Amino acid sequence: MTIIDGKAVAEQIKKEIAEEVKQIIAAGGKRPHLAAILVGHDGGSETYVAAKVKACEVCGFKSTLVRFEDTVSEQELLDKVRELNEDDDVDGFIVQLPLPKHISEDKVIEAIDYRKDVDGFHPINVGRMSIGLPCYISATPNGIIELISRYNIETRGKKCVILGRSNIVGKPMAALMMRKAYPGDCTVTVCHSRTKDIADECRRADIIIAALGSPEFVTADMVKDGAVIIDVGTTRVPSTLTKSGFKLKGDVKFDEVAPKCSYITPVPGGVGPMTIVSLMRNTLLAGKKEIYKD
Amino acid sequence: MTIIDGKAVAEQIKKEIAEEVKQIIAAGGKRPHLAAILVGHDGGSETYVAAKVKACEVCGFKSTLVRFEDTVSEQELLDKVRELNEDDDVDGFIVQLPLPKHISEDKVIEAIDYRKDVDGFHPINVGRMSIGLPCYISATPNGIIELISRYNIETRGKKCVILGRSNIVGKPMAALMMRKAYPGDCTVTVCHSRTKDIADECRRADIIIAALGSPEFVTADMVKDGAVIIDVGTTRVPSTLTKSGFKLKGDVKFDEVAPKCSYITPVPGGVGPMTIVSLMRNTLLAGKKEIYKD
Repeated sequence: MTIIDGKAVAEQIKKEIAEEVKQIIAAGGKRPHLAAILVGHDGGSETYVAAKVKACEVCGFKSTLVRFEDTVSEQELLDKVRELNEDDDVDGFIVQLPLPKHISEDKVIEAIDYRKDVDGFHPINVGRMSIGLPCYISATPNGIIELISRYNIETRGKKCVILGRSNIVGKPMAALMMRKAYPGDCTVTVCHSRTKDIADECRRADIIIAALGSPEFVTADMVKDGAVIIDVGTTRVPSTLTKSGFKLKGDVKFDEVAPKCSYITPVPGGVGPMTIVSLMRNTLLAGKKEIYKD
Repeated sequence: MTIIDGKAVAEQIKKEIAEEVKQIIAAGGKRPHLAAILVGHDGGSETYVAAKVKACEVCGFKSTLVRFEDTVSEQELLDKVRELNEDDDVDGFIVQLPLPKHISEDKVIEAIDYRKDVDGFHPINVGRMSIGLPCYISATPNGIIELISRYNIETRGKKCVILGRSNIVGKPMAALMMRKAYPGDCTVTVCHSRTKDIADECRRADIIIAALGSPEFVTADMVKDGAVIIDVGTTRVPSTLTKSGFKLKGDVKFDEVAPKCSYITPVPGGVGPMTIVSLMRNTLLAGKKEIYKD
């Protein structure tokens, strides 16, 4: 049984990106530039954005943080999105979600120039991924695919069961795991709240990607010997063992499931560290204009 | 066992559309206008486009057919697409596929204003469908959903196995059948050429949507009693029984599978007649600006 070390892979990828940026700069190229729009002072969002800015430093990117109070109007936000769309120095940018309720997230995301949409949330990027055209793939699916690939986990012809049908994990993972490519070429089953016998579906799976947000949902009796388990769940549960008063729990009961697996991602330290690195990879692609030429 | 009569449903829908158009005109509204671009003289394409023009007449739509020889340059075609994008009288338009090899289909499709993309092939419409936003759904998936809905076939919590992962049937059907809605809310499995045991997957299905293009692939031993079978296959096979010298074969061995089913679509006369009607429904939506306001 191998525990997939997302933290180590993420560190390795950041090193690779930093090295490539050095070479780009040495060859007289432009330093990739990621901008982030942060609205309000939500604790989680502050933490994520700070980590993204930090990762930009490590990768040798330029970063710009644009802050708004949560009283910002939708129009002001859309104006800023348009300004960033037109700013030739900005290669890619993100709008940190969630946004205050008086602002339509869909509208803001669709206002982003898809060629700078390094979060991969614009319908054009979602659609191009489904069709199989070059695009920005969003952070979590991108990170999972990279982990599978770096660990050389066989996927072709395997039965992959995905738990959850969210727009940010379940649906894109289904599209990626069924595509005619590696990683991919799986027989994909998507389960969700309406699925009649999730345990039975799981027992037949070679690969389980759990993204329900339901702590310790997947138990040992639901897992076939030798299965690959990717745990995307990150639910905060109260804990007396940590300073913060909580700890992160995955969707998988790690202690009892791990011994049965061939590969498993822990929580934390599995998929989590890969998400910010995926954003960095997309920003590098944007800087190099590899997905969209102009 | 009920044989789903796609032809009758299609006729019924055309009547409903024609009635609605009459009311729109009576209320002083604009007659929906569909334009079609046809390149070259491929027999299949000629037939399809003629049928679409005919259906426009029946529905009371205005239609415009724009023809090019297959020597047309990509640029000329793109110019025409832009002209139709800007023509306020044209509510929706399609470019009949396939295109000659020297023209990029992806480029042409992406040049279409997604608000007029009544074929639903533009990445924005594909992406919006995946995300669950209002959009034009392409003809075949749209027709299948309509058949399921008109026959009140229960889908919630059912196991739906989709055979094939094409961009025009398999992938969009997976997205639609797994969405949180009716028809939908299925546990969806997508099978394809790399699937290890398609027969076993099929035997566990409450609903099978067969879109492999492999005549009579699905046999009685692969089907559970009471299953719902949607046959999307239409392969021309030689026949001495028809004037044309060929007949259409579905992906399902109808004679032996039908007796086991609760519902089944025949070939021809099942899904086929619904596709053009789906295009008509999208054109009506475009005329009424129901999906995109401006």
